[in-house]
Amino acid sequence: MFKQLGLIGCGLIGGSFALALKQAGWVARVCGYSATKATMNLAKEMGVIDEICLDAPSAVRGSDLVLIAIPVQAIEDCLREIAPHIDTDCLVMDVGSTKANIADAAKAFLGDKLSQFVPAHPIAGKELAGVSEASPTLFKDRPLILTPSEITNLDFIERANKVWTQLGSKVHKMSPTEHDAAFAAVSHLPHLIAFAYMNGLIKQRDHDQFLSVAGPGFRDFSRIAGSDPKVWRDIFLANRKNLKEQITHFKNELQAIEHFIDNEDSASIVECIKASQVARNEWIINQ
Amino acid sequence: MFKQLGLIGCGLIGGSFALALKQAGWVARVCGYSATKATMNLAKEMGVIDEICLDAPSAVRGSDLVLIAIPVQAIEDCLREIAPHIDTDCLVMDVGSTKANIADAAKAFLGDKLSQFVPAHPIAGKELAGVSEASPTLFKDRPLILTPSEITNLDFIERANKVWTQLGSKVHKMSPTEHDAAFAAVSHLPHLIAFAYMNGLIKQRDHDQFLSVAGPGFRDFSRIAGSDPKVWRDIFLANRKNLKEQITHFKNELQAIEHFIDNEDSASIVECIKASQVARNEWIINQ
Repeated sequence: MFKQLGLIGCGLIGGSFALALKQAGWVARVCGYSATKATMNLAKEMGVIDEICLDAPSAVRGSDLVLIAIPVQAIEDCLREIAPHIDTDCLVMDVGSTKANIADAAKAFLGDKLSQFVPAHPIAGKELAGVSEASPTLFKDRPLILTPSEITNLDFIERANKVWTQLGSKVHKMSPTEHDAAFAAVSHLPHLIAFAYMNGLIKQRDHDQFLSVAGPGFRDFSRIAGSDPKVWRDIFLANRKNLKEQITHFKNELQAIEHFIDNEDSASIVECIKASQVARNEWIINQ
Repeated sequence: MFKQLGLIGCGLIGGSFALALKQAGWVARVCGYSATKATMNLAKEMGVIDEICLDAPSAVRGSDLVLIAIPVQAIEDCLREIAPHIDTDCLVMDVGSTKANIADAAKAFLGDKLSQFVPAHPIAGKELAGVSEASPTLFKDRPLILTPSEITNLDFIERANKVWTQLGSKVHKMSPTEHDAAFAAVSHLPHLIAFAYMNGLIKQRDHDQFLSVAGPGFRDFSRIAGSDPKVWRDIFLANRKNLKEQITHFKNELQAIEHFIDNEDSASIVECIKASQVARNEWIINQ
């Protein structure tokens, strides 16, 4: 049970976290800061936050739990800004989608508060973002990755584990490096592909006619093509080394299938699709 | 109202068509043929078909409606085989995902029955295939493309239109050429990308760890990676000219984004994602 959550970023993820903690009776009061006034007003109207703060340090002061839920690139500045205001018993977490860059920033800026910082990454999303989409069940049955450093205090790691478990998340632990390699593969590359695909489509003269007959396959495949530009710019730049490696794996396979089609190599095409089918079906069964 | 549906291929699409027609009271009796005995037995147990036929011509004889719902490459042979057995008042439709090759086969094999053939393509799919997944509501609110030729009898086109409209489909008309160009863009390329992506992923040593943290974005993006190998081999080969063109559009955009990332060109990355986001959001609003 926490007496005060300082919420920095009152969007879909931050808002859902606050709602879920409140619903569980795990927090008495939420002080929220967001870059835009409209978001904070809406968050307050919705009961996501109890008090509007004028800057990030104001949300941190007096809090025993802080969640930083803003785009990846902004987290670095935020850590620098709030460091002097973190109470000695306050658990600080971010929810950024890349972790090595945040680990570096934390080391650079948090000083003796570094041991209280437990980076987290909840694997939860929705077609639409924003606090209006916030839901207390967003994290239920979803993976949640913690990437503590070697000097993170074990007691704080355990508190973080308990909070997310309480919200229904399945908690994994990884190093920041392992995390970024894994997410380049299963999240960042799919987003990059979806954006490239959609741009390739809409630049064609007949794209309206094409889109008029698109069906459920297109709908699901392209869902992530509707993701937020600044969030994903930050992720691509922060994790570009791993992302480049994943693009190479993908392009090699794309070239292989193209080659099979050019040569009407029916057996190799079937083999390739079969491998994909088996892997996808195994994955979905394990969910 | 039809007296007998001859169903060639009793899978997800064919089975759903038969169930929907029966539920609407539009067909008195369904005679079905499928390549495997187990499928036909299950289809009969489920009430999808009333009579098991030993070959395609047996399903066609005496029918006033025939639906060919088998993989694209097999449709050509099927048309040749059934042509002599089609009654003069029988409406014949296929549900293949490519249309130019089927138009060619129909011209070559159907003779004076060509005017009764109305190629159709229902844009409906499911995570899993097979007659066990058949549902009478599969076509409801889904696009359905008819690609009649210049010599198709208008009365038969109108009958086809009425049948699919009755099942809840939104009927479009296109030429086979327009159809194949559109579906290369909004369906065939996404499938090819999904297969390539999944192969690129599972060939990596750490793919189990990667997959263990995959979330809802991965789930939706990769759904079509679980599609049927033979169905998609046939589609890729039948529509390879259009598909190659779409691959080129996609690769150009992929290269552009890679270039922006290499150069840390933040503004161009945002612009590219923004274009994708706007297009995807416009599309989903129109659904």
